Amino acid sequence: MQPTGSVRPGGRTARTKAAVTEALVAELLEVGYAGTTIERIAQRAGVAKTTVYRRWGSLAQLVVDAFADTAGAQVPLPDTGSLEGDLRELGRASIAMLRMPHLRAVFDVVVREAIHDPAARSALTEFFAARIANGAAIVERAVARGEAAEGTDPAEVIRMVGAPYYARAYITGEPLDPALADRTAAVIALAAREGLLLR
Amino acid sequence: MQPTGSVRPGGRTARTKAAVTEALVAELLEVGYAGTTIERIAQRAGVAKTTVYRRWGSLAQLVVDAFADTAGAQVPLPDTGSLEGDLRELGRASIAMLRMPHLRAVFDVVVREAIHDPAARSALTEFFAARIANGAAIVERAVARGEAAEGTDPAEVIRMVGAPYYARAYITGEPLDPALADRTAAVIALAAREGLLLR
Repeated sequence: MQPTGSVRPGGRTARTKAAVTEALVAELLEVGYAGTTIERIAQRAGVAKTTVYRRWGSLAQLVVDAFADTAGAQVPLPDTGSLEGDLRELGRASIAMLRMPHLRAVFDVVVREAIHDPAARSALTEFFAARIANGAAIVERAVARGEAAEGTDPAEVIRMVGAPYYARAYITGEPLDPALADRTAAVIALAAREGLLLR
Repeated sequence: MQPTGSVRPGGRTARTKAAVTEALVAELLEVGYAGTTIERIAQRAGVAKTTVYRRWGSLAQLVVDAFADTAGAQVPLPDTGSLEGDLRELGRASIAMLRMPHLRAVFDVVVREAIHDPAARSALTEFFAARIANGAAIVERAVARGEAAEGTDPAEVIRMVGAPYYARAYITGEPLDPALADRTAAVIALAAREGLLLR
């Protein structure tokens, strides 16, 4: 599935991709999604417009591709010694991500495109499936320590910890206060302890 | 702020608006947002294209306007006798809304547009602010019955009950099972009782 010319990591194709991704983020931040065009990105990255079209086809596909790359980077899992502490750290990381302009600019476009575009939908769903699977260890440790009921569903715990931040950012449009992570962690840790989040 | 020609409720302008809104929803369901155009909507509604352009300006504005109308309709508040029961009913209503194709088609476009368009963002934020304010009575009754701690923040309770459904629908892309309402209601009712959702 590699296009002609993508030879080896660190080669010309990788450099083109890095330059185009950097130009994309810069354009999104400067002129917004509505003002961003492949022409402007190509010019800024110093590559031919046709190269960008051949490789990505559309602006939406370019954004989804940049996002999928970021998503691949594994975030280190917190291990604070308590379920509530770990969930608080996870929550703070999500809030921090949503407040970083260069990450948010890309994420915004992916969430937007995912509503009607199956490729963007897949990229976003896979991103969260990986994060949810990665977070399961937090819940398994909590069950072993007796902090969460036997049979607690790790996926549901991780999912519920993230839901309030994403709902504020994309649905209700309310501010994202880092203190929100403390509250949500307390609520979900209590629910897990009381056996309300079983498989 | 009424455009020329909008005379009285039930008059010609109201009929035009109803026909255009109906045509909009039918088009969204049939051909999706990418395929929907003002031309097709006008033709389907039997009105002049220029009438639609003059009144709404763009497809996005037409969708936001249709949504704002729906949002104005007050949903009856559940009163089951318990906080958990009321929160379950609220959750089921949200899930049902997200599963109704004609409502979802409009909501999808508003969520999408809200990411980059301030008018859509306002419509969505106001919609949820009204629902959250409307739901406060549920929490006030629960505090009076001793089911929620004194000082519980009604807005935060209602907000947290909705978050998991919207996060699944628009962020993680996971299925919306009506049983999710039971789980979320139990978690949030417990948190309110234990005083984790104070102002």
